[in-house]
Amino acid sequence: MLKSLKDYSPVELRHLIREGKYTKPTSGLASGYTQANLVILPRELAYDFLLFTQRNPAPCPVLEVSDAGSRKLKEFAQDIDLANDFPKYRIYREGKLDEEVTSVESFWRNDLVSFVIGCSFSFESELIAAGIEVRNITQQVNVPMFNTNIPLKEAGRFHGNMVVSMRPIPEKQVIKAVKVTAAMPKVHGAPIQIGHPEHIGIKDLQKPDYGDAVEIKHGEVPVFWPCGVTPQNVIMQIKPSFVITHAPGHMLITDVKNTSLKYE
Amino acid sequence: MLKSLKDYSPVELRHLIREGKYTKPTSGLASGYTQANLVILPRELAYDFLLFTQRNPAPCPVLEVSDAGSRKLKEFAQDIDLANDFPKYRIYREGKLDEEVTSVESFWRNDLVSFVIGCSFSFESELIAAGIEVRNITQQVNVPMFNTNIPLKEAGRFHGNMVVSMRPIPEKQVIKAVKVTAAMPKVHGAPIQIGHPEHIGIKDLQKPDYGDAVEIKHGEVPVFWPCGVTPQNVIMQIKPSFVITHAPGHMLITDVKNTSLKYE
Repeated sequence: MLKSLKDYSPVELRHLIREGKYTKPTSGLASGYTQANLVILPRELAYDFLLFTQRNPAPCPVLEVSDAGSRKLKEFAQDIDLANDFPKYRIYREGKLDEEVTSVESFWRNDLVSFVIGCSFSFESELIAAGIEVRNITQQVNVPMFNTNIPLKEAGRFHGNMVVSMRPIPEKQVIKAVKVTAAMPKVHGAPIQIGHPEHIGIKDLQKPDYGDAVEIKHGEVPVFWPCGVTPQNVIMQIKPSFVITHAPGHMLITDVKNTSLKYE
Repeated sequence: MLKSLKDYSPVELRHLIREGKYTKPTSGLASGYTQANLVILPRELAYDFLLFTQRNPAPCPVLEVSDAGSRKLKEFAQDIDLANDFPKYRIYREGKLDEEVTSVESFWRNDLVSFVIGCSFSFESELIAAGIEVRNITQQVNVPMFNTNIPLKEAGRFHGNMVVSMRPIPEKQVIKAVKVTAAMPKVHGAPIQIGHPEHIGIKDLQKPDYGDAVEIKHGEVPVFWPCGVTPQNVIMQIKPSFVITHAPGHMLITDVKNTSLKYE
């Protein structure tokens, strides 16, 4: 009997992806394990970006930073190749998306620093475990994301406003949703706004700037969390000559359980 | 009637210190407000050090990093001059203590980056508020600190072992002491070892490597926390050409209350 993809361990999935045998989104794989965003920058930009993440940990929760030139991690995964273990990558040149590839091995340089960044997949699974429906998962669409007027703290060349994700939550579960996510600061933590999109510069909840619109039912409150699209947005504003990111939804599957991202 | 020093606000104390009218240790001043350690490095070393703190947050809890060349902070204090608002500074040249001064204005350079780092003063006041005696405060001595065999995660040129502080805690209060400090990760957080100094390479509790020995009473357990001496220790190992730190006990008095360093 063939083993189902759902039964693969994180390292088995990374091997499959590394060999080019799996190139699709990673949602639903390796249930319970942390999946992560990727930003790879030249060393020349890495200090400003690391400082930016230090000053803005909610939208930019860094899980691990590689050594310059290294394709390995030490904390979040053993047996890993950062240049091959994401199912799909995006190459940006001069701040513009240039190509999508399944390996960045041929582009690798000794001055590249990889930032592995927390992702809301981790807190969504905790919300569901707490009995809270996550609408974008129910509807099988991407979470709706919005530009806001919330200014971030500048660091060197990097500055901009926060991007947020929105999930409609029944009014009587809002406090529980705050508590569950507040306990996970490495994956964006508590919401930044509850119930008043207009206060953060959002005009129409049915017209997200990224992702897909979701239904908001009677008695539900729109709740807004800091979003991992923020760092990519901020980086692209300065039109850097060379940046690699993961392709949306095509994440790194780490060896670390979501539950271990809670307060230690 | 003359106003007592104890009644001065943080900003009033910083002014007094800035004008050279107060040059002593800051322990006991501005009760309830966070005091902070200082490391000032040339920009050339700042990336490796920031990465080191990202990888080792327990011994190196960064509260704020200045912009290169700036003598201001944005989050932890308004109306601040980083070159004058510590009562005493140490200048290290080639990794050796060269002089102690009350102002570093004349040494300032445009490439200097200031790291403002959390300090155990903040959690000691929370321990006392929780009804736990802090022996070094009772005995009015410096906390005992020890070199350990606990390896830190390397970052660029920086590597080394953790330095810990020790406080004897009555056995029945140990769990409470863990809970109180675990809630304050920005000031070292939970202990790293309880009751077994020999497991982390400490031979004699009455012979600390830094600070003063304290009495350990019958029924008390030695509890060890990651210590802010760690980053200075690690930096000096590579004998950098120029580093400024605060003089021990001569801290920055910030505008931020200790209680706001708890989990948000």
